[in-house]
Amino acid sequence: MNSDHPAVTVIGLGSMGSALAAALLDRGHPTTVWNRTAGRAEALAARGARPAATPGEAVAASPLVVACVLDYEALRAVLEPVEGSLAGKVLVNLTSGSPEQARETAGWARSLGAGYLDGAIMTTPPGVGSAEMMFLYSGPPEVFDAHRPTLAALGDPVHLGADPGLASLYDAALLGLMWSTLTGWLHGAALLGAEKEEATAFTPFAVRWLTAVAGFMTTYAPQVDAGRYPGDDATVDVQIAAIDHLIHAARARGVDNALPELLKHTMERARDAGHGSDSYASVIEVLKNPAGGR
Amino acid sequence: MNSDHPAVTVIGLGSMGSALAAALLDRGHPTTVWNRTAGRAEALAARGARPAATPGEAVAASPLVVACVLDYEALRAVLEPVEGSLAGKVLVNLTSGSPEQARETAGWARSLGAGYLDGAIMTTPPGVGSAEMMFLYSGPPEVFDAHRPTLAALGDPVHLGADPGLASLYDAALLGLMWSTLTGWLHGAALLGAEKEEATAFTPFAVRWLTAVAGFMTTYAPQVDAGRYPGDDATVDVQIAAIDHLIHAARARGVDNALPELLKHTMERARDAGHGSDSYASVIEVLKNPAGGR
Ligand SMILES: NC(=O)c1ccc[n+]([C@@H]2O[C@H](COP(=O)([O-])OP(=O)(O)OC[C@H]3O[C@@H](n4cnc5c(N)ncnc54)[C@H](OP(=O)(O)O)[C@@H]3O)[C@@H](O)[C@H]2O)c1
Ligand SMILES: NC(=O)c1ccc[n+]([C@@H]2O[C@H](COP(=O)([O-])OP(=O)(O)OC[C@H]3O[C@@H](n4cnc5c(N)ncnc54)[C@H](OP(=O)(O)O)[C@@H]3O)[C@@H](O)[C@H]2O)c1
Repeated sequence: MNSDHPAVTVIGLGSMGSALAAALLDRGHPTTVWNRTAGRAEALAARGARPAATPGEAVAASPLVVACVLDYEALRAVLEPVEGSLAGKVLVNLTSGSPEQARETAGWARSLGAGYLDGAIMTTPPGVGSAEMMFLYSGPPEVFDAHRPTLAALGDPVHLGADPGLASLYDAALLGLMWSTLTGWLHGAALLGAEKEEATAFTPFAVRWLTAVAGFMTTYAPQVDAGRYPGDDATVDVQIAAIDHLIHAARARGVDNALPELLKHTMERARDAGHGSDSYASVIEVLKNPAGGR
Repeated sequence: MNSDHPAVTVIGLGSMGSALAAALLDRGHPTTVWNRTAGRAEALAARGARPAATPGEAVAASPLVVACVLDYEALRAVLEPVEGSLAGKVLVNLTSGSPEQARETAGWARSLGAGYLDGAIMTTPPGVGSAEMMFLYSGPPEVFDAHRPTLAALGDPVHLGADPGLASLYDAALLGLMWSTLTGWLHGAALLGAEKEEATAFTPFAVRWLTAVAGFMTTYAPQVDAGRYPGDDATVDVQIAAIDHLIHAARARGVDNALPELLKHTMERARDAGHGSDSYASVIEVLKNPAGGR
């Protein structure tokens, strides 16, 4: 074993687990791999990975065990039968799940004498290995600090705090932002597509505009924390007037309007709650207080 | 009149019109202003603007007339009574409206012998005057080229094409992207806020993540144009599984779920239309083909 490049085990070789193992191999880490369907280890073995015959053999092979399987049920199915082998190991769990599942699994690992970090991968498999991509971790800071150099092989490792649920919580929040953003972008592309404007023409504007939108978020974040939303720049009332242009333009072109209609309805709830002359950040008051669905 | 800094008239001195006039004054353009409520011209007059007594006097004062009032109804109310004075002038209309209204107004201006550009301001008043902010224009390219240096006082002038409806169409599409993005961000902030994570802690991650999301948009744009959506990186099926984590986490914390539920429903419609193993870009097929609301 090379102390600059400690040995790592990767459990789960789906599209994401395979990308993780490949990134570790690329950085020179001796990498042991295991997957339920053994055939998925072959391509990695050809690149120098050592396939383990069983999960127990895989865990035994390295001080650091990275797991990335479909869900927590799969994780427990793989690791519970060999839980005795986890004592003294560090388990880095990159399987997606809820904060509650992460906290429960952290407790289980602690009871076995294993270190535990929960993680969330903020990229797709082709982005793995790039220092630009965020890998969010939560759990004991000393465990994170000890393994940070190894984790840097996968992407930019960011530690959110000691509570193991934080990575999942941030993951959910950021993925929600992604789906909202992508769907808003596709809605715009559908609207422009109805007039034969190509998505490849629209998208550079959308990308540039997101920089301005990120600026609005940065302006509004302290308003959210303070619970006060001065509408100096643009008010909820102004946004409600403007979204009608989008809804009419989309309707006239046969584009589905469920998303802008929900957004308008949400803004109207903010207005009705007294935020008409506040900034868009005041819409969070509606989201914090559900009205029993729409 | 200074040929480096041609005279400009600004009609409408609401929060946006006032910012436009101030930016022109800052760059040294002799600036004539008019507003229905005359008192709003005072602050600008103190900075060197020349208040006109009537819309006709305002139009007569400069070769370039920038109008920014509430809506097209207000625009026509101001300009139709003095339409004779528009011959030989260029009208740059920065009032928000529909592509249809822009096209109709372009025809009206043409019938009067006036040049016409329709524009959309992709920033709030504090952003006016910054070269980073996009001002979208559509209309005859020669009119745009002739006035581009003056328009650069307001922000970065971008010409979309000769069809005067394009600026409004892009405006609607980009604002839709903004509302979607901001609401997704606020939903995430509400989720994290339920665990006492501050919006100012979350937002730098959200801003950084938007850069990755912009990368997905750039990857997906050619898929949209081609109508083929290879799910090499992440499939609609995978996103549907992942959004349940968000919905459960938000529900457990009493956060409104109308937005993620609509997004999930939209993804499910894409899956049901045969796009389960396609990329997220395939969701546009659903948006192009409304199912009569949600
Ligand atoms: N793909 C992405 O873009 C992405 C991004 C961020 C996070 N993630 C997360 O990463 C995790 C893996 O995703 P993926 O894209 O790699 O999925 P995938 O390609 O579908 O792979 C799923 C993996 O889980 C294993 N598995 C499933 N059920 C199992 C069980 N009962 N016992 C043992 N192993 C089981 C599969 O083994 P077999 O080969 O034997 O089926 C395979 O290794 C998920 O939690 C996902 O949310 C993915
Ligand atoms: N604020 C932004 O962030 C922003 C961003 C992009 C685009 N815009 C667009 O810019 C335009 C102006 O917005 P704003 O923020 O400046 O709004 P605002 O502060 O409410 O100002 C509205 C302006 O329209 C005038 N007006 C309204 N009805 C009129 C009528 N019937 N006859 C004559 N004048 C009339 C008002 O004159 P009085 O002073 O006499 O009422 C005032 O000058 C809108 O189309 C808006 O969508 C605004």
